[in-house]
Amino acid sequence: MPIDTTALIDDLTARLDADTLITDPDRVASYLHDEAEWAPYGKPAAVVRARSAQDAQAVVQVCHQHRAPVVARGAGTGLSGGANALDGGVVLSLELMREIVEIHELERIAVVQPGVVNDDLRAACAERGLWYPPDPASSPWSTIGGNAATNAGGLCCVKYGVTRDYVIGLEFVTGTGDLVRVGRRTAKGVVGYDLVGLLVGSEGTLGIITEITVKLRPLRDPERTIAGYFPDLVSAGRAVTAVAAAGLTPSALELVDRTCLQAVDDWKNMGLSTEADTVLLGRIDTPGAQGDAEAALMEQVFSDSGAGFAVVSSDPQEAELLFAARRLAYPALERLGDVLTEDVCVPKSQVAPVLAEIQAIAARHDTVIANIAHAGDGNLHPLLITQPGDAAARERAQLAFHEIIDVALAAGGTVTGEHGVGLLKMDGLHAELSAPVVELHRAIKSAMDPAGILNPGKVFRAHG
Amino acid sequence: MPIDTTALIDDLTARLDADTLITDPDRVASYLHDEAEWAPYGKPAAVVRARSAQDAQAVVQVCHQHRAPVVARGAGTGLSGGANALDGGVVLSLELMREIVEIHELERIAVVQPGVVNDDLRAACAERGLWYPPDPASSPWSTIGGNAATNAGGLCCVKYGVTRDYVIGLEFVTGTGDLVRVGRRTAKGVVGYDLVGLLVGSEGTLGIITEITVKLRPLRDPERTIAGYFPDLVSAGRAVTAVAAAGLTPSALELVDRTCLQAVDDWKNMGLSTEADTVLLGRIDTPGAQGDAEAALMEQVFSDSGAGFAVVSSDPQEAELLFAARRLAYPALERLGDVLTEDVCVPKSQVAPVLAEIQAIAARHDTVIANIAHAGDGNLHPLLITQPGDAAARERAQLAFHEIIDVALAAGGTVTGEHGVGLLKMDGLHAELSAPVVELHRAIKSAMDPAGILNPGKVFRAHG
Repeated sequence: MPIDTTALIDDLTARLDADTLITDPDRVASYLHDEAEWAPYGKPAAVVRARSAQDAQAVVQVCHQHRAPVVARGAGTGLSGGANALDGGVVLSLELMREIVEIHELERIAVVQPGVVNDDLRAACAERGLWYPPDPASSPWSTIGGNAATNAGGLCCVKYGVTRDYVIGLEFVTGTGDLVRVGRRTAKGVVGYDLVGLLVGSEGTLGIITEITVKLRPLRDPERTIAGYFPDLVSAGRAVTAVAAAGLTPSALELVDRTCLQAVDDWKNMGLSTEADTVLLGRIDTPGAQGDAEAALMEQVFSDSGAGFAVVSSDPQEAELLFAARRLAYPALERLGDVLTEDVCVPKSQVAPVLAEIQAIAARHDTVIANIAHAGDGNLHPLLITQPGDAAARERAQLAFHEIIDVALAAGGTVTGEHGVGLLKMDGLHAELSAPVVELHRAIKSAMDPAGILNPGKVFRAHG
Repeated sequence: MPIDTTALIDDLTARLDADTLITDPDRVASYLHDEAEWAPYGKPAAVVRARSAQDAQAVVQVCHQHRAPVVARGAGTGLSGGANALDGGVVLSLELMREIVEIHELERIAVVQPGVVNDDLRAACAERGLWYPPDPASSPWSTIGGNAATNAGGLCCVKYGVTRDYVIGLEFVTGTGDLVRVGRRTAKGVVGYDLVGLLVGSEGTLGIITEITVKLRPLRDPERTIAGYFPDLVSAGRAVTAVAAAGLTPSALELVDRTCLQAVDDWKNMGLSTEADTVLLGRIDTPGAQGDAEAALMEQVFSDSGAGFAVVSSDPQEAELLFAARRLAYPALERLGDVLTEDVCVPKSQVAPVLAEIQAIAARHDTVIANIAHAGDGNLHPLLITQPGDAAARERAQLAFHEIIDVALAAGGTVTGEHGVGLLKMDGLHAELSAPVVELHRAIKSAMDPAGILNPGKVFRAHG
């Protein structure tokens, strides 16, 4: 049955404040898709910018009645098409729900609305001597709601874990329009199923998150930064494995390859590309003398693995400069063309061989592939660059994209380390998960969203 | 339709090795219940001691065909009745599946069968310089499969988290008899729903776990032990809150009260009860000078909170002696009568007032209530002691048990911090979770186990 969008909009209008509902096509246009290249998106009937959990609940209830799809959205910084609009439905933006409801210093928890920007939460925590670790590269813009919906990772995950490791309680709207609370405020709790963990990473397909309770940690001591300049990508990959083999637990271990360094230099003239082919940036935050010893050991491991230059820096400004190259890599590459972002994660022992295979794939498909990586946890972000309008290049890049997924799976890895499945990795999900496991996904989806209105057609195919 | 147990046993006999299937009542008797006092249990048709995932799969397939209940079981050390047998069904023991399949030093993961005993895994990891943190008090006997099914906690959770924080992959038998793998071996991965987290803590109601992949950490430096001797229970409770307020992150913070100390002394004559009313045992494992400073600060916090005596000990033998009193408390109390174990968890700021309320409840119901606690995360274990055969005392104790649950909920806590719901906390679950959340549990249960054969009637009531 097709959706009666006129009646849908009438019913939304009856339930919502006028300035909350957007139907003007020019304004709707900025809510059509996230930042994934080439993922398709539809034409929604409306955008709702919710100001409260009750607004979100009203949207789900009306959409449930009309069997219209609801696509929840934070800042739209996703890289898999998970927040892309669907035909005839509602895009439900949570960006205006940006209140930090509570930061409790003694319990070390924060309660936030979904639209709170990651860096804003981190800053508010820091003022109280506390730290919210998950730090996706999008942290200046992405929201905690979006981070939770995608189980976002980041740089310090290699030591401190991902978003799911910090979310302990949620308020959310169910697929049938109930507003419920799950989880806890206590340090532990095992009453019933882990619905919090199930919602986190479900990409808007099981519920619409309207409030998030997260664990916090005390602020850390300053980190030491260890830089290694390598003559080629694969020797840097071997150094990543050697760091793990040495028993080190870095608080970050990032890789930036030649193509990225060159792009950053072409833009900002930082002079890195003349000194290194590939840079590894490690961090150690173990306090005191033991931390110094670990940093020295990492420097040694870099040298032993073939780094032409390796150094420990405890000067925050110098370290910031090195990490700036890491952060600038993505925007620098965007100046060169369309960027399709990969997100495979492989065992630490497989980093070097998989990087070598990615280079071979780039050559085979005549595609420019730059590499940044949360190398310490084997999370590789090959970045496939094509010129806008070059259909043949785009086709080659898409072949390369799928071959990288095949290589990661063959190495015992996963098709997505932290960006989520959305639309771009749906084929990958079906390659990674067995048919009975996909059936379990479908059964849970039906249990939580019997009308199938929450971001339908994302993450996995609804049928065989 | 009643279960045809003769046909059920015939079909099991056809699928299993003879020595795997037990129907002799004398041998069945030792598989009827776990260690929960007063939880009911039924009369199963058979016990199967699975030797392989295929055995477990055969049991589920046969039981699915006969609509007979399957109760999975590790070592039977549970404290909530979760593993108690059901009429006409099969108790599926995983205790013989005790192979450590793999310990991978570089990836820092272990793959184990469900019957591996917690301490055995920890010892095998230690030989390789690695550490599996979750350390329930039952660790000399309880199995990793049981730990995963109940999301077991322990002493070091206060700093290092619970079982769910370490399980990254599972093989399990679904409610329809499929043998599936979910999760990953990589550091990160966000493909599809978190079925691993959903299975962990589901107490055998969503699947039968046949293999577990866990994350490991490097072995730690030696811990410092900080003992505080307090004049009463509530001042020790206030010290727990003060430790949190001081920004400390202990690697253990245990409480042992007067009744426990007295019982240990009556048994082992350790002389503790003459020196203290209530003991707090803290541990700090931060390395180096910073760790020394933190230990000194904890000692100071103990003194400032009213401890008559407080001391930092770095002598492992002395520290072991102190923790022995903690470990011996439970068996020492069992010498005094039947012990019903509570397991509420409250916010850290609520430890002292809730301990005071527990004392008042004990007085009001004329019930001996001893207290041990993973105090640092607010996880209290009031132990209600009654004399065997004293029905009136048992009734008073049960009233006290439920009042403690009410107090914990009113304080913003949960009815079970780490033992699970099983049968003993089912009323508590329904008090803690809202009706729509219970409905989500039922829907997920139906999705994963459509025939309702996996540990039915545990955790939550099947109907309104």
